[in-house]
Amino acid sequence: MTGSGFRTRHLTIVGPGLIGGSLAMALRDRADTITIVDINPDTCAYALEKGIADYATDDLKAGVAEAETVILAAPVRSILDMLRNRIGSYLRSNTLVMDVGSTKHDICEAMALLPVGVGAIGGHPMTGKENSGIWAADAALFQARPFVLCPTRRTTPATHLRARSLVEALGAELIEMESVRHDRIVAGISHLPYMLSASLVATVAREAQHDDAFWRLAAGGFRDTSRLAASDIKMMGDILSTNARAVATLLAMFRVQLAMMETQLISGEYDKLVESLLPVREARLNWMETYEQKRNGNGHTPNTPR
Amino acid sequence: MTGSGFRTRHLTIVGPGLIGGSLAMALRDRADTITIVDINPDTCAYALEKGIADYATDDLKAGVAEAETVILAAPVRSILDMLRNRIGSYLRSNTLVMDVGSTKHDICEAMALLPVGVGAIGGHPMTGKENSGIWAADAALFQARPFVLCPTRRTTPATHLRARSLVEALGAELIEMESVRHDRIVAGISHLPYMLSASLVATVAREAQHDDAFWRLAAGGFRDTSRLAASDIKMMGDILSTNARAVATLLAMFRVQLAMMETQLISGEYDKLVESLLPVREARLNWMETYEQKRNGNGHTPNTPR
Repeated sequence: MTGSGFRTRHLTIVGPGLIGGSLAMALRDRADTITIVDINPDTCAYALEKGIADYATDDLKAGVAEAETVILAAPVRSILDMLRNRIGSYLRSNTLVMDVGSTKHDICEAMALLPVGVGAIGGHPMTGKENSGIWAADAALFQARPFVLCPTRRTTPATHLRARSLVEALGAELIEMESVRHDRIVAGISHLPYMLSASLVATVAREAQHDDAFWRLAAGGFRDTSRLAASDIKMMGDILSTNARAVATLLAMFRVQLAMMETQLISGEYDKLVESLLPVREARLNWMETYEQKRNGNGHTPNTPR
Repeated sequence: MTGSGFRTRHLTIVGPGLIGGSLAMALRDRADTITIVDINPDTCAYALEKGIADYATDDLKAGVAEAETVILAAPVRSILDMLRNRIGSYLRSNTLVMDVGSTKHDICEAMALLPVGVGAIGGHPMTGKENSGIWAADAALFQARPFVLCPTRRTTPATHLRARSLVEALGAELIEMESVRHDRIVAGISHLPYMLSASLVATVAREAQHDDAFWRLAAGGFRDTSRLAASDIKMMGDILSTNARAVATLLAMFRVQLAMMETQLISGEYDKLVESLLPVREARLNWMETYEQKRNGNGHTPNTPR
């Protein structure tokens, strides 16, 4: 392990929003030069003005040509498009390419097609990806949060070490796994919750067409359960379309759990219902205590209600 | 309307937790005497020590005998039990009886059986009912939050006026409706979300038996969507068992919405999926802007992540 020794001559971040901008800030002192590539001139102007980057361009080829480390922080299908069609021929040999997309299997497969000599690894920081743009960037975003690395056929031992030291430099908790396993897990903890949240809002919106008191009475429980329905649609469309099978699998499992509770409810077996809800409550409380509260011990709340 | 003129000689609150305790604090200056009735001696001791109540007892009969206003703040099935079996014979004539249970139809039906001369009305403050007990009581809990009143066969015009002035004294937004309509609405905005949240946690817990990285990677999206699964089980069991038909109806509607999105996902119609997600996102953003953010303008956040 290289410890906290990550250093790079030239870091380029492509498509920086909250995550990419936060990476630039967190790695500011570890890169001699930081370039960002973005088609939005406001993003570029902001990054330069705030000193988040030294150079900004909308030209991918120019932006990555001198880079020793490239982080792809665009939506998943944009990352796939870059990997499949363009970026390989722009990169210098021995460049480290990492992405921070929310699904990993398709991206890791696409990375395997990069030219030999490019070192590539999939990445996914679990920080809550609101659609808040570079304006919400925060150097402390990754501290004590899980950061998943998924090796690819282009992950050489040297690539592996550099990627690990980068993650350690962020103060994140490094977790390595195969991309298929990653995608199944995020299907359960992130994409399934999004589908439920969106379907809940769709259900209430339909009822509210006839009775707007549905909206008037909705309070804290609805607010939290419906929050993910406000996620950026482009981002979520990319995620769901690159993880359809795992999401469909978890949806099928969810339906079984829901149907069991529903059966107990409809048949009037309330004692059984309460019995089956008890371990669920325990599991949620355990998770909060074991994982979530410790992570937020630094007072950093990555997701606030919007 | 009587404006903010609510006053009562003797207020008794039965089974005070967060809601009942907050009512006592909010109405402190409008009642000459406040009694609480609770079987938990800690609750009674705390209420007396903090000056939330003047008297505390575990004897329902003694606690309500002198009351001019009685608020039933126990779990729903305890309220039903009191209304059906005991409390009618303990009450003085012209007493105002209100409850604050989360389902209203069964309770309003039970109120209709109280002796003629007792004035009774169903109530439901939409404030987020965490299992936090009287220790979290807050006089400002109801400010700018909806407070539903459901008239019963025992709601005389005088009862109605007194109940309205009580709600106004809390600073709440008064909303009146039939109990059946109330129960359908809360099935959609509160009980359906709970069922989804619990089924989500059950699904993830099942997967996590084989791979505990499900728990390790779960972050903000899971935290918010799963929060309701940590609700008090006794409270939720009472709620679901007294609103089973409306919850089953909303569950059936939810399944239709989820199945539509799932079909688009599985069949690879991602453009259609994104198209159907857009108005859902709009609806959520609209709700936040129109209702939720205004209510929280006073900086009071009734539901914080736990």
